[in-house]
Amino acid sequence: MKIIIDVMSGDNAPAALLQGAVEAAAAYPDTDIAVVGNEEVIRRTADELHLDPACVEIIQSVSVIGMEDNPVSVIREKSDSSMVIGLRMLAQGEGDAFVSAGNTGALLSGGTLITHRIRGIQRAAIATVLPLQKPVLLIDSGANLQTTPEQLVQFAYMGAQYAKYLMGIENPSVGMLNNGTEPTKGQEFQVAAYPMLEACDFHFVGNVEAKEVPFGACDVLVTDGYTGNILLKYTEGMGRFMLGTLKGLFRRNLLTKLSAMLMRKNLYAVKDRFDVSEYGGAPLLGLSKPVIKAHGSSDAKAIRNAVRQAIRFAEADLNGIIARFASGTAADKPAGA
Amino acid sequence: MKIIIDVMSGDNAPAALLQGAVEAAAAYPDTDIAVVGNEEVIRRTADELHLDPACVEIIQSVSVIGMEDNPVSVIREKSDSSMVIGLRMLAQGEGDAFVSAGNTGALLSGGTLITHRIRGIQRAAIATVLPLQKPVLLIDSGANLQTTPEQLVQFAYMGAQYAKYLMGIENPSVGMLNNGTEPTKGQEFQVAAYPMLEACDFHFVGNVEAKEVPFGACDVLVTDGYTGNILLKYTEGMGRFMLGTLKGLFRRNLLTKLSAMLMRKNLYAVKDRFDVSEYGGAPLLGLSKPVIKAHGSSDAKAIRNAVRQAIRFAEADLNGIIARFASGTAADKPAGA
Repeated sequence: MKIIIDVMSGDNAPAALLQGAVEAAAAYPDTDIAVVGNEEVIRRTADELHLDPACVEIIQSVSVIGMEDNPVSVIREKSDSSMVIGLRMLAQGEGDAFVSAGNTGALLSGGTLITHRIRGIQRAAIATVLPLQKPVLLIDSGANLQTTPEQLVQFAYMGAQYAKYLMGIENPSVGMLNNGTEPTKGQEFQVAAYPMLEACDFHFVGNVEAKEVPFGACDVLVTDGYTGNILLKYTEGMGRFMLGTLKGLFRRNLLTKLSAMLMRKNLYAVKDRFDVSEYGGAPLLGLSKPVIKAHGSSDAKAIRNAVRQAIRFAEADLNGIIARFASGTAADKPAGA
Repeated sequence: MKIIIDVMSGDNAPAALLQGAVEAAAAYPDTDIAVVGNEEVIRRTADELHLDPACVEIIQSVSVIGMEDNPVSVIREKSDSSMVIGLRMLAQGEGDAFVSAGNTGALLSGGTLITHRIRGIQRAAIATVLPLQKPVLLIDSGANLQTTPEQLVQFAYMGAQYAKYLMGIENPSVGMLNNGTEPTKGQEFQVAAYPMLEACDFHFVGNVEAKEVPFGACDVLVTDGYTGNILLKYTEGMGRFMLGTLKGLFRRNLLTKLSAMLMRKNLYAVKDRFDVSEYGGAPLLGLSKPVIKAHGSSDAKAIRNAVRQAIRFAEADLNGIIARFASGTAADKPAGA
């Protein structure tokens, strides 16, 4: 098993990425870790952080894809970038999974262009875990602005398999995000998708209203990438808003500061609850090879967890399961897909 | 000035509605309050609550529109309902504004069919205040599943005027909810609407990502009714989730319970912060007459505030301002509208 890590992309690159890579190499001794980046920069960073670069394989890259680069064009323009080189290695079988904290759009189009989609899967989708009362897997959380009913069903299936095999949820419940619970609610593609989702062999619980999402209405929440992206970013914003309100609450006066001291541990517990780094990264589902998008602001811990996730993604052969479904040979082929 | 209140609709009807109507009559002595409902039920409820029905005018109605009734057909089918009778009075000038806590869809189609839209306004929209770091007016929060660029610009204009004249925000900032900040982000109707919004004379701050919404990125957040409804309901859900997390935090052990006691007042402050009843109800903007949709679970206080809001809506002649804009005679007519 070999995991490829793009250590040049992300807000905290290369330090946090390299740190995470080295920690992962120590945590998973049976797994080879290859880091793609500028060797000189990597060695200098390793020295500064007192890390032993010997525990990872260094793959030389020249340029770096930035957050502002055009996702589609940059893949061809920056063929010597850490992201493209890593994806090419993955496509050529020189690794089992790829982790990057870089430009999501570029990773998505690069993954599609270089590793290709699973045959029969119309669109790759991003699945992100929302840290709510219980974890909710949101798919698509931003890959596709528009979605057809068939694509939505494929997203739901891929999400259900990911929840089952990588999140360890037995018979995960799948809900469609909608503005009402009746089957006739929502936009045309949702009304068309509803009976198709009902025909699937996973546990479809129907339409789910946003107000029920925080309280475990479903394990997998399927939606188009536009709405999913709004929900994902609002979850992030509301989480920050909640913690900020909580902090303000305890800073009001001496009494509140005293009670903050009395319950320090519990406050940390709440903070950890909304710590997305626990979940590693967001898998790009539908690509022929496992690709994990780590959060742009990932620290070493998040990268270490993203590597753990990448290992389990490859070990579970999730793509094999999705491929059998997509090729229609799977018993659980949903109607219309 | 006369305000018409549908006291038969809503989760807490008729008690909370009647209570709120009577409180409003006392709070606004210069305003006549007419309550529409079954007179016998109203008089019995008044007795039970020890209220003096003499301070309000009672308009007899027979049926009630339920939450599950089909919004479009029920308006014709239940012409003797409290909602339809109230709307007819409003249309005929037998009142200056109408308040109902009933079926939103029915109120919307009823308002459109009976009071009609302002000439030139293509669609009525629901504007709702989100209780975040500072109040954010969300428009459209659920009236229209799909939206054209022209309609979105009209929503933005109506929202800006409401924020200025009824929320007292000098030169309110208007943002378009989107999945990125660049003008090219989002769906086709958003890309097309962007330059039109820029050409408007209100303070357009561009696209706003959902993660910035809680932190005062704009005073008015314009979006299509589908996305708006998701955001509105998720705000409600996340608010409840936050208060629940807070409660759980303070119930953990003796120490946390002690600190809860130490800061009881401050905890109530947080709870009040998310109390939507403070804001009264959601105005239906674009109708020829002021219609306020009170929350289905409104208590007497919420109804009292909705009446205050209805009075100010009528006094400010907001519809006159919107009508001048829509007819194109207004100086601040936006490009393309």
